[in-house]
Amino acid sequence: MQRKILLSEKDLPSHWYNILADLPGGPLDPPLHPVTKQPLSPDELSALFPRALIEQEMSGERWIEIPEEVRKILALWRPTPLYRAYQLEQALETPARIYFKWEGASPPGSHKPNTSVAQAYYNRKEGITRLTTETGAGQWGSSLAFAGRLFGMEVRVYMVKVSYEGKPYRRIMMETWGAECIPSPSPRTKVGKAILEKDPDSPGSLGIAISEAVEEAVEREDTHYALGSVLNHVLLHQTVIGLECRKQLELASDYPDVVIGCVGGGSNFGGIALPFAYDKIHGKDVRLVAVEPSACPTLTKGVYTYDYGDTGKMTPIVRMHTLGHDFVPPGIHAGGLRYHGMAPIVSRLVKEGVVEARAYHQRAVFEAAVLFARTEGFIVAPETAHAIKACVDEALAAKEEGKERVILVNASGHGHFDMAAYQQYFEGRLEDYEYPEEKIREALSALPQV
Amino acid sequence: MQRKILLSEKDLPSHWYNILADLPGGPLDPPLHPVTKQPLSPDELSALFPRALIEQEMSGERWIEIPEEVRKILALWRPTPLYRAYQLEQALETPARIYFKWEGASPPGSHKPNTSVAQAYYNRKEGITRLTTETGAGQWGSSLAFAGRLFGMEVRVYMVKVSYEGKPYRRIMMETWGAECIPSPSPRTKVGKAILEKDPDSPGSLGIAISEAVEEAVEREDTHYALGSVLNHVLLHQTVIGLECRKQLELASDYPDVVIGCVGGGSNFGGIALPFAYDKIHGKDVRLVAVEPSACPTLTKGVYTYDYGDTGKMTPIVRMHTLGHDFVPPGIHAGGLRYHGMAPIVSRLVKEGVVEARAYHQRAVFEAAVLFARTEGFIVAPETAHAIKACVDEALAAKEEGKERVILVNASGHGHFDMAAYQQYFEGRLEDYEYPEEKIREALSALPQV
Repeated sequence: MQRKILLSEKDLPSHWYNILADLPGGPLDPPLHPVTKQPLSPDELSALFPRALIEQEMSGERWIEIPEEVRKILALWRPTPLYRAYQLEQALETPARIYFKWEGASPPGSHKPNTSVAQAYYNRKEGITRLTTETGAGQWGSSLAFAGRLFGMEVRVYMVKVSYEGKPYRRIMMETWGAECIPSPSPRTKVGKAILEKDPDSPGSLGIAISEAVEEAVEREDTHYALGSVLNHVLLHQTVIGLECRKQLELASDYPDVVIGCVGGGSNFGGIALPFAYDKIHGKDVRLVAVEPSACPTLTKGVYTYDYGDTGKMTPIVRMHTLGHDFVPPGIHAGGLRYHGMAPIVSRLVKEGVVEARAYHQRAVFEAAVLFARTEGFIVAPETAHAIKACVDEALAAKEEGKERVILVNASGHGHFDMAAYQQYFEGRLEDYEYPEEKIREALSALPQV
Repeated sequence: MQRKILLSEKDLPSHWYNILADLPGGPLDPPLHPVTKQPLSPDELSALFPRALIEQEMSGERWIEIPEEVRKILALWRPTPLYRAYQLEQALETPARIYFKWEGASPPGSHKPNTSVAQAYYNRKEGITRLTTETGAGQWGSSLAFAGRLFGMEVRVYMVKVSYEGKPYRRIMMETWGAECIPSPSPRTKVGKAILEKDPDSPGSLGIAISEAVEEAVEREDTHYALGSVLNHVLLHQTVIGLECRKQLELASDYPDVVIGCVGGGSNFGGIALPFAYDKIHGKDVRLVAVEPSACPTLTKGVYTYDYGDTGKMTPIVRMHTLGHDFVPPGIHAGGLRYHGMAPIVSRLVKEGVVEARAYHQRAVFEAAVLFARTEGFIVAPETAHAIKACVDEALAAKEEGKERVILVNASGHGHFDMAAYQQYFEGRLEDYEYPEEKIREALSALPQV
């Protein structure tokens, strides 16, 4: 009985897998300029991103080499272990074989540094010395802080003010890695100033924080902007997860019937699923399940159309599943899954039937997370818990059918900074929230005309 | 360049190393009954501990087999990786080669489950269904909660009230694993009731919490008590750390000149150092450095004599380094190192010159921890940071001498629940505290007459 399937550092993937080379339905629709609504040129992105990342964003090459300097840093925690969840299987009395990929062992505690390290590297290589970004609960901000420090860059993180004040520990983590963390809205940017003039007590939002980080990057020559999900190059960098899983399952002489990940912007799901999507597109029988919160049902209740990436309409317009850029999801605990849109790649795969989507309410999700903690030991983040819930349901379905089923699930991060959410669950203070259909229709009525 | 030296599950040690077979200076002095002051018989311990652990406590066998059921659970996170700290070496511009053993990847986040799993197993095997223990900051309590759950046992943790109220997250972690966590002093025990009658607002102390946990274990047939450090069998279970390091360094064709760990009760230091102490006792040239806080200088300023293990004089009297059982260290952040006594095994090795001791103030300790986070990525616990500080000093000494030096340090736990301490460091609110000599003399005047 072997619990962990480990790979050595030399098995760290040498290339990322780029699904743009294999996407069913043809190339992605081009992103449009938020004002002119014309297709964006690479030049228009160069105020925000380095040349290499813009190329990756649009590349049709199937395999893109991972620079040696990036692999050296990834090796701090990669390859990550793939676990066989014997104890969870036993508790569920299921004939299914459950494997989980443990991304929680990275220094910031999630899959996010897989891309923050690559983004910091390419920016530094092109002479950029400062990075800005936004963060909500802090997973992405801390991952960029970590990566920036290792390449000797300054990092400034605009953190949604209500999180900055209410959840200080991720902020201190960012400061420990030397980043500067600023509550947003801030008086440092025009966007922030305008909002503070209207409402000095504004609690902030991810939309506002994005606008502030983008504004600063546009205005300073030495500064670029970094995004933690949604974009093609972010999903590209995350494919190390699925590529490692493929090798690890080969070592176990197994192959998944179903691959599961939670989706907010789509990066950890893309990371584990895209290499298997390649297999599926080429005829293999494997199901890919994206799991979202019922309170923010982008894939299951949104529409597939062109929309802005942010509330402030400063980002490009992209074709994706969206609930409308004005959609404000309720304050559920899986902060990383509270996004109105979705990665264009994941959206396309759902539209083409390669990926199926599923939504859960948060109480059922925490119930699954507690079962996972009490069997496999690890306490996962609320985001990850959505994937665990789907995994439990798949295992129970296999039991009902009396059939074997191989389940692969991405355990994308630990919950050490989310214990207050577990507490609310235990105290019966968590609420399930169904978004009213008319609210969604209302948000969708504000879609841009393109 | 290989960062991580990994072992597979089949390389998990099959036996613990018992240094009682090799201890210089002859057998340990016997523990004495706290009231009669006569040597304790195994029977007198059987109200608290299972037969198997009492045997291990007194065994002269050099190698003790690790039960298969324990190895299966340890395999959830063991063998842990040994890291070569290339980036720290580079930052220090040292010719030293630094290796750190990463114990922070266990589900509870430290080395503590190495023994909690073994203790839960032996208790369960002898029919015990409930365990009690005490916890301060919560590292040990959460490790026992985790282990108890995996063997289907009830766990009740008496948590020092001031921590219970001020640091809720470790408590919720214990509850996530299904343990019951009770603020101490509590009205559930005679000890607790007596204290609450005198002082209803008592903030509690580790001494009081020990007394409550012991009282409950003595009074209930189905219940035993578990301790997370100090005792011989606890250090025995921790030797998997050092045994794995020996194998991993062999794979790197290296051997340490110096082995470093922090000491509170002595368990993580014992875990990494005892297998190398065997080498040293048998002629090998290796230095073993135990690092304690200057604010609780048990090894560097205490005396080697018989003393009680707790303030309430309910535990056995053992021969060890002590600052006196009335010693109350200031509230430094490394809560796990605030203990007046020391493991008898570590004390003896210090007395015999096998182990050297060193003390540091906490500001210098946090400075080293921040350097470590900014080079190697991992944010360590304040306890662990003491060992990191000694490691940095050894590396700088090697640089000054212009000589190679191989340094092995135990990175015993992560600091995810200690971010408030990092915040105080950054804000300049941490104080260094030198314990006045006359206070130590005063505490030592209360030693028992045996």
